Amino acid sequence: MKIKNLPSYKNLEIVPNNHSDRNYEINISIPEFNCVCPKTGLPDFAIIKINYIPNKNIVELKSLKLYMVQYRNVGIFHEFVTNQILDDFKKACKPKKITVIGDFHPRGGIKTVVKANWPEID
Amino acid sequence: MKIKNLPSYKNLEIVPNNHSDRNYEINISIPEFNCVCPKTGLPDFAIIKINYIPNKNIVELKSLKLYMVQYRNVGIFHEFVTNQILDDFKKACKPKKITVIGDFHPRGGIKTVVKANWPEID
Amino acid sequence: MKIKNLPSYKNLEIVPNNHSDRNYEINISIPEFNCVCPKTGLPDFAIIKINYIPNKNIVELKSLKLYMVQYRNVGIFHEFVTNQILDDFKKACKPKKITVIGDFHPRGGIKTVVKANWPEID
Amino acid sequence: MKIKNLPSYKNLEIVPNNHSDRNYEINISIPEFNCVCPKTGLPDFAIIKINYIPNKNIVELKSLKLYMVQYRNVGIFHEFVTNQILDDFKKACKPKKITVIGDFHPRGGIKTVVKANWPEID
Amino acid sequence: MKIKNLPSYKNLEIVPNNHSDRNYEINISIPEFNCVCPKTGLPDFAIIKINYIPNKNIVELKSLKLYMVQYRNVGIFHEFVTNQILDDFKKACKPKKITVIGDFHPRGGIKTVVKANWPEID
Amino acid sequence: MKIKNLPSYKNLEIVPNNHSDRNYEINISIPEFNCVCPKTGLPDFAIIKINYIPNKNIVELKSLKLYMVQYRNVGIFHEFVTNQILDDFKKACKPKKITVIGDFHPRGGIKTVVKANWPEID
Amino acid sequence: MKIKNLPSYKNLEIVPNNHSDRNYEINISIPEFNCVCPKTGLPDFAIIKINYIPNKNIVELKSLKLYMVQYRNVGIFHEFVTNQILDDFKKACKPKKITVIGDFHPRGGIKTVVKANWPEID
Amino acid sequence: MKIKNLPSYKNLEIVPNNHSDRNYEINISIPEFNCVCPKTGLPDFAIIKINYIPNKNIVELKSLKLYMVQYRNVGIFHEFVTNQILDDFKKACKPKKITVIGDFHPRGGIKTVVKANWPEID
Amino acid sequence: MKIKNLPSYKNLEIVPNNHSDRNYEINISIPEFNCVCPKTGLPDFAIIKINYIPNKNIVELKSLKLYMVQYRNVGIFHEFVTNQILDDFKKACKPKKITVIGDFHPRGGIKTVVKANWPEID
Amino acid sequence: MKIKNLPSYKNLEIVPNNHSDRNYEINISIPEFNCVCPKTGLPDFAIIKINYIPNKNIVELKSLKLYMVQYRNVGIFHEFVTNQILDDFKKACKPKKITVIGDFHPRGGIKTVVKANWPEID
Repeated sequence: MKIKNLPSYKNLEIVPNNHSDRNYEINISIPEFNCVCPKTGLPDFAIIKINYIPNKNIVELKSLKLYMVQYRNVGIFHEFVTNQILDDFKKACKPKKITVIGDFHPRGGIKTVVKANWPEID
Repeated sequence: MKIKNLPSYKNLEIVPNNHSDRNYEINISIPEFNCVCPKTGLPDFAIIKINYIPNKNIVELKSLKLYMVQYRNVGIFHEFVTNQILDDFKKACKPKKITVIGDFHPRGGIKTVVKANWPEID
Repeated sequence: MKIKNLPSYKNLEIVPNNHSDRNYEINISIPEFNCVCPKTGLPDFAIIKINYIPNKNIVELKSLKLYMVQYRNVGIFHEFVTNQILDDFKKACKPKKITVIGDFHPRGGIKTVVKANWPEID
Repeated sequence: MKIKNLPSYKNLEIVPNNHSDRNYEINISIPEFNCVCPKTGLPDFAIIKINYIPNKNIVELKSLKLYMVQYRNVGIFHEFVTNQILDDFKKACKPKKITVIGDFHPRGGIKTVVKANWPEID
Repeated sequence: MKIKNLPSYKNLEIVPNNHSDRNYEINISIPEFNCVCPKTGLPDFAIIKINYIPNKNIVELKSLKLYMVQYRNVGIFHEFVTNQILDDFKKACKPKKITVIGDFHPRGGIKTVVKANWPEID
Repeated sequence: MKIKNLPSYKNLEIVPNNHSDRNYEINISIPEFNCVCPKTGLPDFAIIKINYIPNKNIVELKSLKLYMVQYRNVGIFHEFVTNQILDDFKKACKPKKITVIGDFHPRGGIKTVVKANWPEID
Repeated sequence: MKIKNLPSYKNLEIVPNNHSDRNYEINISIPEFNCVCPKTGLPDFAIIKINYIPNKNIVELKSLKLYMVQYRNVGIFHEFVTNQILDDFKKACKPKKITVIGDFHPRGGIKTVVKANWPEID
Repeated sequence: MKIKNLPSYKNLEIVPNNHSDRNYEINISIPEFNCVCPKTGLPDFAIIKINYIPNKNIVELKSLKLYMVQYRNVGIFHEFVTNQILDDFKKACKPKKITVIGDFHPRGGIKTVVKANWPEID
Repeated sequence: MKIKNLPSYKNLEIVPNNHSDRNYEINISIPEFNCVCPKTGLPDFAIIKINYIPNKNIVELKSLKLYMVQYRNVGIFHEFVTNQILDDFKKACKPKKITVIGDFHPRGGIKTVVKANWPEID
Repeated sequence: MKIKNLPSYKNLEIVPNNHSDRNYEINISIPEFNCVCPKTGLPDFAIIKINYIPNKNIVELKSLKLYMVQYRNVGIFHEFVTNQILDDFKKACKPKKITVIGDFHPRGGIKTVVKANWPEID
């Protein structure tokens, strides 16, 4: 399944990590995520959660918001957009560890939550 | 105990998994599940939760909903319907791991939650 | 300390387990449990929770309710009734694992929760 | 730092444990604990939680309440009263394991929770 | 990135630990933390949580509050202030273990929580 | 719009009101209501709430439950089923006052609650 | 419908009201009420709430508790026990105003709350 | 202030009201509303609530959803979009009474809720 | 019933009201109130709430706290201490209107809330 | 009591009200308000809520935020700052009705909420 008009990871700006000598966690939650259902063309709503241990760089939060807004008109399944954000975040800031969770609003009485990790779970 | 009119796992449609090279979790929650008590003939209500790590395929959510609706007139115990859904989901999409939880509304002041896994718990 | 008029485990009816080839969990919650304080003769209230992995049989829920109702006039300490229910449930359905929790309403500004397991905790 | 007028562990009455052949947990919560700030002389409020695995004896709950009431006029720091209760409870009933938690109301916009165990944490 | 006008760890007063022979936990929560966004100059709000196992000394809570108030006019990123508090707390009381969590109010629909530990996480 | 297979108000059994000399309220809540969407044929879920001041008779609760179960296969809009229940309840027990509320689960991200009264609101 | 073994209002002890020159409200909540279903013989559970404006006397709370315990073996409908408690409370302390609410646990998926007032509602 | 690309009230489909002889309330809640901030061009999120007493017609819910989706790219202030929806709903179904509430997500630490009525409040 | 060792209303300090030309409300909540049960001698716990419209003066909050602490060893019924606080507050600051609520922790499974007003309720 | 360095109402920018022909409500909530205790010099925290019916103009939200930030270093009592904001808001946009609520964080175990209206309450 091909997905069109995906945002580029290059839109994620990075800032040098002042405390790169220590492993610590950053948890980010974006409760206003929007994309489009590829079957009906109607908007889907989700909370995206990103938890990572930074390496040399951290992701600047304003650029992260603007990257997320670019999904507003992208037609993509719940399962795939969660993995796509993981891939882009990895390319942008090369974290030591990362988890991305897509927690979607119910549709037709069914709710889905997708959770992807790198390094991946066993 | 024989159970009649069970839905078939073949009603669960599958979609190729775009990210099958990675282990990731999909959590699905269906808060509007209905079946029938085999003793009284009255409807029983439950929230069904399915957590799985997909392999080559994921289950399409609309078909999952229609599969669930087919239990509306099936007379079956709480303990057995939870295991039945696990068996059908496994046959349909052959996941790497799966848990099914049936969280039933109280009856006579007693509430039950049934939890089945594959591979099974020790 | 001797306890009088305890219900018998024989009041717990059993049903063959359709899925005895798999280890799965059954969680039962009885929020309307009543016994009597052996010191004051006044009723004590608790939520009893039973979590077990069935073996060849499961306990039928209606008979479990009636067994529980029989404690209404038994004078017994919080700590001991929780262990007594564990012993009776084990005799009735011979589960692979079981936990019984007695979560009692506060008395005199003190609340107690008693938790017993088989096989027991280390 | 010397602390005056501490209650004695001898005020904690014990009862033989009917189920001493099994390891099981007793969780006690006392939401109405009071002592006095040694700096200001004003009352401090806390929820005290005691979790233990009994050995030959259990602590009788009414005597526990009266022991707790005796802290009402004792001037003592949050960190130290939590450890003191652990020491007294150990002397009184010689449990196999015990945790005491002091969950104090905020003062000056700061809230503290102190948690002591025996055997101690690593 | 240089940060100006940071408070000194020397403002954290210490008190001898009456129970230094035992490992126990102290959890402190400061829900009224304020610093300034280095980009916009507007105030940022957070809950700071400190969990530690004390060694020879504990940190006196009133001095901790005054230390925290000194961040009110410091321009500093969420990620860095959390690590800075960890460093100062370590210098002041040399705990056996410590975790500092900065749980920040949302900005632009994005919420961040930063969590640093010593000894650090793997 | 014609609606087929509606249950009859005659299925609601009545019991003489022991306290008919006093105006008092009875509030009933049925959180497991089911009917069918007349457009899609899929089940709709609702909580039905009935508040009334009885006159000479009260409605027996077991018969009310069975009356409600009969809507399981009726295709009817949210707005109309709420008014229908009001009409039947009035015919069955002739209350002094009555309100019926239908609080439906969301569909397509839209939730509806319908509230009908007799005597009607201004 | 005749009801047997009802407790007497004479079990409610009264205490002179120190502030009888002022109208003020007393709200009492008894979350551990028990009676018996006249149809099944099984126990029913409720929270009883009493709100009154005292006149010359207030009801002593310990005697109120003992009065309530006497309903434990009385077979009586939800609607009628609520009105019965109102009648007894009125006889015992002759309040200026009183409301009694019986908030019963669900049975068969149906929950009832009964509310009686004196002087009665319009 | 002119607002461009507003949806038309003609997109709201109507259905004859089966119970137009009675005044009753319909409450609709749309938790997934989106428009665009006219200052920053970034999306704004809100829950829109519509409460009305229908006259001859009710608004069909699917068409209401599609009407709401059309605001996704409209640049409009919180205060004005709430009033605009009220005007359109009135034109479409001519209700007896209507309230529209726009409950917006916080921006910059400020949250707004706008509430418009017809007939208007005093 | 005589009550001993009551605090004096003279301990309540007053401050001139800068906005005495306007009627406005001040709501104060003291969740750490303590007095003693006159029957058992054991401490009783309550949340005291005071709502008033000030006249020429407001009550200074630190002195209010110290006044409340003085009830710690006073033996007094729930119903009477609530009225006593109302009387003292009236004498101290002569408000235009005042309500005092005593919301007491449960004892023996019974919870009481006492609410007194001046000018009194009808 | 004189208060220094108060912000000016002229910092509140106004926008013409597109719907000034209709009375409607705007509710604003600012959960991150800060001022300084005039006695201790330490920061006080509050949620400020403003509810108004606009006349010819509405207050622009960004300017409202900046006005609120200016209280960060003002020493002022809870009761007076709430009235001050009411006065400034009235001068800036001349609303038809307005309520301002200051909901302050607890200090010393005492919480205050101040509520001022224009036109004032009776």
